[in-house]
Amino acid sequence: MTPDRIAIDWIAVDWGTSNLRVWAMGAEGILAHASSDNGMGQLTRDQFEPALLELIAPWLGAGETTVIACGMVGSRQGWHEAPYRAVPCAPLDRSGLVRVPVQDARIAMFIAPGLQQTRAADVMRGEETQIAGALALHPAFDGVMCLPGTHSKWAQISAGEVVSFQTYMTGELFALLSQHSVLRHGMVGTGWDDAAFDAGLSDALSRPDRIGAQLFTLRAEGLLAGLLPESARSRLSGLLIGVELAAAKPYWLGQPVTLIGAEALCANYARALLAQGVTARTLPATECTLAGLASLALQLETTP
Amino acid sequence: MTPDRIAIDWIAVDWGTSNLRVWAMGAEGILAHASSDNGMGQLTRDQFEPALLELIAPWLGAGETTVIACGMVGSRQGWHEAPYRAVPCAPLDRSGLVRVPVQDARIAMFIAPGLQQTRAADVMRGEETQIAGALALHPAFDGVMCLPGTHSKWAQISAGEVVSFQTYMTGELFALLSQHSVLRHGMVGTGWDDAAFDAGLSDALSRPDRIGAQLFTLRAEGLLAGLLPESARSRLSGLLIGVELAAAKPYWLGQPVTLIGAEALCANYARALLAQGVTARTLPATECTLAGLASLALQLETTP
Repeated sequence: MTPDRIAIDWIAVDWGTSNLRVWAMGAEGILAHASSDNGMGQLTRDQFEPALLELIAPWLGAGETTVIACGMVGSRQGWHEAPYRAVPCAPLDRSGLVRVPVQDARIAMFIAPGLQQTRAADVMRGEETQIAGALALHPAFDGVMCLPGTHSKWAQISAGEVVSFQTYMTGELFALLSQHSVLRHGMVGTGWDDAAFDAGLSDALSRPDRIGAQLFTLRAEGLLAGLLPESARSRLSGLLIGVELAAAKPYWLGQPVTLIGAEALCANYARALLAQGVTARTLPATECTLAGLASLALQLETTP
Repeated sequence: MTPDRIAIDWIAVDWGTSNLRVWAMGAEGILAHASSDNGMGQLTRDQFEPALLELIAPWLGAGETTVIACGMVGSRQGWHEAPYRAVPCAPLDRSGLVRVPVQDARIAMFIAPGLQQTRAADVMRGEETQIAGALALHPAFDGVMCLPGTHSKWAQISAGEVVSFQTYMTGELFALLSQHSVLRHGMVGTGWDDAAFDAGLSDALSRPDRIGAQLFTLRAEGLLAGLLPESARSRLSGLLIGVELAAAKPYWLGQPVTLIGAEALCANYARALLAQGVTARTLPATECTLAGLASLALQLETTP
């Protein structure tokens, strides 16, 4: 159902590789929400504006509405490149916003850039907005933010800036191994086994150098010892998160940690960190994304 | 071209998941060779005998010809299960051979079983035949055999027996990451860079616990520092082989090592081991497979 015309202040857009999500924002917060599977990965350059308008047109009035987007939409293969900003820097800044030329005069379109690090080489797009949002929600935070996902990010935060960050391909490795490798035969279904997760985690954290030997064991135990699919999948998750935590130890050891991401995934990371004596706070990803984009909207308003 | 009927002693068969390869064997060695892509993974149970006959029919005479196969054809999902033999044991033994019922009276069909290990749980099918062949070629060998591939195997050999073994998913991880992960964008082509391979190897061997952080760097260096596709691919190979060698250190440290496998891949492993002070001998995989199957043919002849 198309909503009636609503009085909105600006439009928030999270435009990743696979999905497009938009929110109509007013003084009180979210007024309306819509989404589609027109992710950046499916679109050619001239398809971006129509894909956006398809979702937000009902919200537009006679005047110009500010639209602020983050995510892969700003990559070189996206709608319009928003060049990375180099850390150390604040996760988002008005000065980095890129104004995108559009056909439809009803929108003023902006894309927020990602962050880059020269050494060790690393990049992020989208997560900087979640970090900015987490900082907007908790301005005094100094410590480490972890954003688990396809490509997990660990970021060291100090005085409102991202000092350094590091990416782990944990989510993508899990998807490849559990769905596309020989291990998939022993991981059918979606069940979960906390004890198996903990065992994998403990194995990988105590001997991360042996990860190479621990993967095929899941297949062999399925064949020889009747390892259950849910146990195999949970142990694989534990092994991969364990290897990530082992390498990210300089980030989380003795630091306040904030997790930002999907609830179930963050719960696994929190459980893993707790086993290492670290109590992490969790913030929902969407709330952080919106708070980050809102901080830009506010800066745009005050420095037109 | 179908060869004229040849006088053969027996037929050797290497039947893996993706391919079927057959050799007509005589007193002097190989008399003829054929292959097809009728791997075990493509066939239902009643398609195995026709797929085999399609290749070997021209070689069959009036009498019964012995056919000996190794590989995934003997798995539970294959033609006929040949139950694993438990290590420690000789890699192949006449007593483990499974006679397969067939329709065509011209063949006496046997499948060689694989090996299993209870702790740490592990299995192999096909590699045991290569190990047996390597031992037939070098009967006095005591030390370690490494069979690099999709699933690399390391086996400790003593007094003609496999004492223990361990599987690493290195080849499959390389294929998944280089062809199906985000890293594929920076690895187009087939070029090679020895220095990048060595660098990845050295990184992974010195800090295997940091492998989680080293993968995405390949993508980021491609975006930010113009890392060449051949360098990215070679460094990924070095990282993954390095993690394998780190975990397999108890196998190769201070041991005579024999590599069995494809020439280019074995050369990479030999280069990697040499950097650790280990000089490895390399044996060609097919020669070992045939020598292993021949050792069974000989046992069948002498103990009918």
